[in-house]
Amino acid sequence: MSALVETEWLAERIFDPQIRIVEINWDGLNDYAEGHLPGAVGWNWKSVLWDPYQREFPADADFAARLGENGITRNTTVVIYGAPVQFGTYAWWVLKFFGHDDVRILNGGKEKWRREGREIALDAPVFDQQDYGRPARMPDMRASREDVLGAIDNPETVILDHRSHEEYSGQRVGLPGKADVGAERYGRIPRAGHLPFDALLNEDTTFKTPAEIADLVKPHVGDRETPVISYCRLAHRATLASFAMTELLGFKNVRVYDGSWTEWGSMVGMPIER
Amino acid sequence: MSALVETEWLAERIFDPQIRIVEINWDGLNDYAEGHLPGAVGWNWKSVLWDPYQREFPADADFAARLGENGITRNTTVVIYGAPVQFGTYAWWVLKFFGHDDVRILNGGKEKWRREGREIALDAPVFDQQDYGRPARMPDMRASREDVLGAIDNPETVILDHRSHEEYSGQRVGLPGKADVGAERYGRIPRAGHLPFDALLNEDTTFKTPAEIADLVKPHVGDRETPVISYCRLAHRATLASFAMTELLGFKNVRVYDGSWTEWGSMVGMPIER
Repeated sequence: MSALVETEWLAERIFDPQIRIVEINWDGLNDYAEGHLPGAVGWNWKSVLWDPYQREFPADADFAARLGENGITRNTTVVIYGAPVQFGTYAWWVLKFFGHDDVRILNGGKEKWRREGREIALDAPVFDQQDYGRPARMPDMRASREDVLGAIDNPETVILDHRSHEEYSGQRVGLPGKADVGAERYGRIPRAGHLPFDALLNEDTTFKTPAEIADLVKPHVGDRETPVISYCRLAHRATLASFAMTELLGFKNVRVYDGSWTEWGSMVGMPIER
Repeated sequence: MSALVETEWLAERIFDPQIRIVEINWDGLNDYAEGHLPGAVGWNWKSVLWDPYQREFPADADFAARLGENGITRNTTVVIYGAPVQFGTYAWWVLKFFGHDDVRILNGGKEKWRREGREIALDAPVFDQQDYGRPARMPDMRASREDVLGAIDNPETVILDHRSHEEYSGQRVGLPGKADVGAERYGRIPRAGHLPFDALLNEDTTFKTPAEIADLVKPHVGDRETPVISYCRLAHRATLASFAMTELLGFKNVRVYDGSWTEWGSMVGMPIER
């Protein structure tokens, strides 16, 4: 069972009741409304995957209710694609964090599906409410600001920054080409290595082969057991790198620092390197 | 000795070597370059009042060096005006925090000075380097995120939010009319009362009378000994309210939470009310 599935695989199972397809949008649900895979539900990342007030995941009961509303139980195979890709891996990571067993990422996402001339739907499907069951959180997937502070002085842990060169070098806090906002200070977490998330992808946003990804990761991480903390700006790009290391290379100890630079670079007194 | 001085007072002392005038700009030094009070030095708030890397004040030695470069010692009377006004009170607060004794705010700032037909200079003055002396920090002026977390459950402390109605009610995180950026979550610190900073000012940005300000503060704060924590988005507006309560009303126990909403609303797991 691979966590990365191909369009052919999904096309053969598109109406399998055991499978639920989820599109994750970054900005409202605009991308979803313009067309999506048949049977896919559309989720705005923040609305579904965060608590409505705090910067925090939903309570277990809210998470279970939201998934149940989409006809998902703990036994459902959830196939996710993001628009763009790193929002899909963010949802993979949150579902895994809540202990969901079978979560897949659709390689190449909606764009590859479309390029291959496959069917695109406009209607939003409605599923019978299900009892999701009880989430079983996996706190080891997550690094807190305190974990990162501790790791700075502990060279056994590899800290990886998955942002662009401009962000890593302290020229910007926003993504290149977007508004330069999100934190009061510029720079990176001390001792962080630089592994830009997009280096792990081909130009069409499919993942590179495990061998190619291993070559890129090797200069930073000793072996599959090495503790790794991944971060970026809001954690989306970090989850993509975490997906690649965990699911494609078999790494055992990758945590995502979901506070990432929007937390670190906004906090009073945090150490910063440029 | 009043910490709030009038343009007439300053005009009579404009070349007094015991006095140093400082203009604080929010955006580079554009406002200063377009004209300033004769003899005034121009400081960009973040460049001068923050550490170059961290979201933190400068180290004591750096603070002393910066003030010394501007011909300021611990005995200098520093007269500050902001462009806009709350950047001036921010500098008042930072200087007081470093233990500078004699800091004044010019009531009405450069705009009032200009409207009164007083001289405006374009050249930047240069002063002989001075040995500033040793700062003596006043940590009690400042509230940390931990202090605020503790205060939420301690009704003896009054928490005041000095932002706009739109920010306080959770509709925006940016100032009205500016880009809506600066934090990932919307809302306010639980139990915070609302005292918008601009209610304390007249339309020409001079301060209202102490009696008028006392009427506005009274519904929130029992007496002058009551512990108060003031915050806004980046702490500028909070320092204006802190200046008014401390220097104009004689309050004894006002702390500024300088992390403010850009920290609180960016941090993972902080409680939020809307």
